[in-house]
Amino acid sequence: MQAINPWSSKEIKYERAFAEFGLKSFPEKWKKELNHYLVERMVIAHRDFGKVMQCIKEGKPFINITGIASSGSLHLGHKVVIDMFLLFKSFGAKNYFCIADIEGYTSRPQTKTMEQAKEIAVNNLAHVLAFGLSKKDVYVQSNYKNRYYAFAFEISKKITRNMFEATYGHVDLGKVSAALLQYADILHAQLPEFEGKMPSITPIGLDQDPHARLTRDVVKRLPYDLEMPSFIYLKHQSGLLEGSKMSSSEPASAIFLDDTPEQIREKVSNAFTGGRETASLQRKLGGKPEVCKVCEILRFHYPDSAEVLRIMEECRKGKRLCGETKQFVIEFLTKFLKKHQQKAKKKEKLARKIVYGK
Amino acid sequence: MQAINPWSSKEIKYERAFAEFGLKSFPEKWKKELNHYLVERMVIAHRDFGKVMQCIKEGKPFINITGIASSGSLHLGHKVVIDMFLLFKSFGAKNYFCIADIEGYTSRPQTKTMEQAKEIAVNNLAHVLAFGLSKKDVYVQSNYKNRYYAFAFEISKKITRNMFEATYGHVDLGKVSAALLQYADILHAQLPEFEGKMPSITPIGLDQDPHARLTRDVVKRLPYDLEMPSFIYLKHQSGLLEGSKMSSSEPASAIFLDDTPEQIREKVSNAFTGGRETASLQRKLGGKPEVCKVCEILRFHYPDSAEVLRIMEECRKGKRLCGETKQFVIEFLTKFLKKHQQKAKKKEKLARKIVYGK
Repeated sequence: MQAINPWSSKEIKYERAFAEFGLKSFPEKWKKELNHYLVERMVIAHRDFGKVMQCIKEGKPFINITGIASSGSLHLGHKVVIDMFLLFKSFGAKNYFCIADIEGYTSRPQTKTMEQAKEIAVNNLAHVLAFGLSKKDVYVQSNYKNRYYAFAFEISKKITRNMFEATYGHVDLGKVSAALLQYADILHAQLPEFEGKMPSITPIGLDQDPHARLTRDVVKRLPYDLEMPSFIYLKHQSGLLEGSKMSSSEPASAIFLDDTPEQIREKVSNAFTGGRETASLQRKLGGKPEVCKVCEILRFHYPDSAEVLRIMEECRKGKRLCGETKQFVIEFLTKFLKKHQQKAKKKEKLARKIVYGK
Repeated sequence: MQAINPWSSKEIKYERAFAEFGLKSFPEKWKKELNHYLVERMVIAHRDFGKVMQCIKEGKPFINITGIASSGSLHLGHKVVIDMFLLFKSFGAKNYFCIADIEGYTSRPQTKTMEQAKEIAVNNLAHVLAFGLSKKDVYVQSNYKNRYYAFAFEISKKITRNMFEATYGHVDLGKVSAALLQYADILHAQLPEFEGKMPSITPIGLDQDPHARLTRDVVKRLPYDLEMPSFIYLKHQSGLLEGSKMSSSEPASAIFLDDTPEQIREKVSNAFTGGRETASLQRKLGGKPEVCKVCEILRFHYPDSAEVLRIMEECRKGKRLCGETKQFVIEFLTKFLKKHQQKAKKKEKLARKIVYGK
């Protein structure tokens, strides 16, 4: 019998959709074996992860490939991507973290020039390095090996207009080239010039699955002997406001890694909690930690699972008010980000050197 | 009054189409000034060539950019492209000759792998070098600077699906990426990392004009200060058989730079001449050098203009029979290609080194 997972009350409804698209629920057994709070709380499904699991268990090499294409500062949503990458790095992977500045430029109207995209890359990379990635774990698109680019163009030969339009609903050239770079990101490390054929793992959101399927479809058509890439599917951190998405273009919706203590205080204070109208009602009826954006921050970013469960339980029972939880989160984030920002500051010079190649 | 050009009897009909598309007839004055048999005989129109002409006259720098994306051996049609390139090189241009192996791969179904495309590149490049281009005049797409690739992807942001579809009639991904590389080929040398802003010249066929117009349209949208690229339009050499195009995929339609003396003899002997049914009829009525594929070879490749005009005149008057002209062309090509093939053989090692970067 499968153990009950206190974090996964809502996943049952996905089961049917998973089966339809060929996804599988992520087994509790693997969660225990990987033993990391993000896997425990955030991974809901997988595609072909078994062979990566086997590599981890047997100490065999596999590729850890992910990336960030941002239009500005990184926010806490990006931190999850980096945390997952660090987890697979700790299992002995071959590491490929992509700073996707070209993709950021071609796919975002607000990024007007490549110069701007590269300055964003410097900022993002400094944060990535501050989290513990090393220079050799990362690559910057605009300054990467020509074999990678050639491969992106090669891939284009194997995708028909119909395949593309069925997946993305359009054939806009800027988005086409962003997608070609993404396929190259996921697959290029298996070329003989890099690591050679081996399993690879990329964490994505459920909404990105059509993209993952097209990538796997392309593998069958390419004239190279490649392993099918594996994917795990993460919950999406939502925005801080009611119904919002965490997005760089809506600053109030997200805590950014560059935010000041004042910004953190203001954003967390204004976050949607779903709390009751009065303190006495809250004490009587209890809160709704499942919909509370402040509790969500804890679920995505506070490593101590017992503590997070305790806070949510107290909230649910009306034993703690929203203000108290907000204060807890403000203190946690302020302390965490202050230390992180100091580290990022120190990595800026190296980041600039990597982006500009000098 | 414009001097009468003995080579251009058929161009009058284009005048109206030229005006409609913004092309201009290539003035006799410039032909005289450039003083080269190919310009005299083959250049029919231009777009914005005046500023390149000015650079040539004033000894100012301009970019000479062209290339070859082949699916196998080069034929005489490619030789015209190389000859034109050498002409502008002789005028002191900044030279960029592209061996378009990635484009060859993505746009040709018969080229199955990049390995195959690179072996074709080695062959093609050896011939190009044998014609007198130096290592620093050429670049090979699969082994070029990452700035070039990044730029190709950047360009994609500025082309809408509608622009592309209106120009090419489709949005097939392999062809999209081939086109993106072509835009980058024509424009990248004007980036600050290369030569900086200056006029550029690329010779193309009339059928490629929509492509040239899209390239110029893109220039207006890019966040770089670039000079509008100029184009000259060349007559197309047709195939050796009646109504055929000179094409690598139809070996009998073309003389290849790798052809043996026997192949040359056979192909020229079987070429369409439009000659009369009998020798006596030919002597009486005269030949049709304008439709004769053997005379066409002379017009495209035999430098001595007086001699070519003399042969055509004798043919027209029935003073010489097709067999005689064929023999003349066979001897000319056999001698020329034998010498050229020896040179190409000697360039193979260097070509391989350039393509594979080692």
